[in-house]
Amino acid sequence: MEPALGTWEAIDSLRVVRTFADQPLEPAALERILNAGRRAGSSKNLQRWAFIVCRDREHLLELSTIGPWAGHLAGAAVAVALVTPDPRAEDAPLSIEFDLGRAAQNMVLAAWELGIGSVPATVYEHERAADLLGLPDGMHCEYVLSFGYPGDASSLSAPNRAGGRRPLAELIHAERW
Amino acid sequence: MEPALGTWEAIDSLRVVRTFADQPLEPAALERILNAGRRAGSSKNLQRWAFIVCRDREHLLELSTIGPWAGHLAGAAVAVALVTPDPRAEDAPLSIEFDLGRAAQNMVLAAWELGIGSVPATVYEHERAADLLGLPDGMHCEYVLSFGYPGDASSLSAPNRAGGRRPLAELIHAERW
Repeated sequence: MEPALGTWEAIDSLRVVRTFADQPLEPAALERILNAGRRAGSSKNLQRWAFIVCRDREHLLELSTIGPWAGHLAGAAVAVALVTPDPRAEDAPLSIEFDLGRAAQNMVLAAWELGIGSVPATVYEHERAADLLGLPDGMHCEYVLSFGYPGDASSLSAPNRAGGRRPLAELIHAERW
Repeated sequence: MEPALGTWEAIDSLRVVRTFADQPLEPAALERILNAGRRAGSSKNLQRWAFIVCRDREHLLELSTIGPWAGHLAGAAVAVALVTPDPRAEDAPLSIEFDLGRAAQNMVLAAWELGIGSVPATVYEHERAADLLGLPDGMHCEYVLSFGYPGDASSLSAPNRAGGRRPLAELIHAERW
């Protein structure tokens, strides 16, 4: 697991991968991905996250029904359900989801460096997801990440799609909006 | 701006930096940081973010009063205010903050590869922040990131603090919680 990509190169070349090869992740690769999430900074270092690692094919098939665009979970080598305290609770701070996004991006980039693709699924059927994942009361899963080697290896080096992101000039303001 | 760090190396070695050298960022370095945020994936590719780049020292001093732990903004080479639609609006999806966390992590990692430290400030005084940043109605700033070369260069290679993160075994579950 030598570093294959510089940090900027990984950020710039990252593509979403929705179709995966029938190839498991090496245990060391999975551990690195999980550790990348674990290492993320968080508000007051609270680390309000848990990761449920799903590899059983039957379970992945069930999980692929938790939302209208979650079908990719059925073919993932590994799915990682991101679990937090309920972000819809009355006093829940916005940092629960912000911090979770930081952890998820760490995982996705660490995977990409190893040639492993990923895509997030948003949970729409929350009761179903909580049931399938055995969540305790008060814990919430809004996203499940699919990981796996790409079904089409050329997706690792696909060029940036024109118009895929808004241009910088549209996003940036100097000092004030 | 050659890649100095592999992706995992950047994720694993990243430290928070709160004290900055009196040294501006090169324009190309700042542009790369902003582009790293711009490149981030988001729910339905909505890219619901804008970045307000603040470098004026008087302005940074004012911004350092937007929260009890925002003092580091006063000494930043650049502050980047992360602006989104109101995440507290009644129908606001959780993905606003999750996606923003992904963009922020991209920025922070891209900076780190260039030897540039960072730390987020959470906004507590939202009216004051909106006023200082000239936010239009309906737009919200929850975080402002400080960026700069570290005041103490050794912070770039400080070892992981023991106990700084929960061990993996505490975070991980297999198939179900």
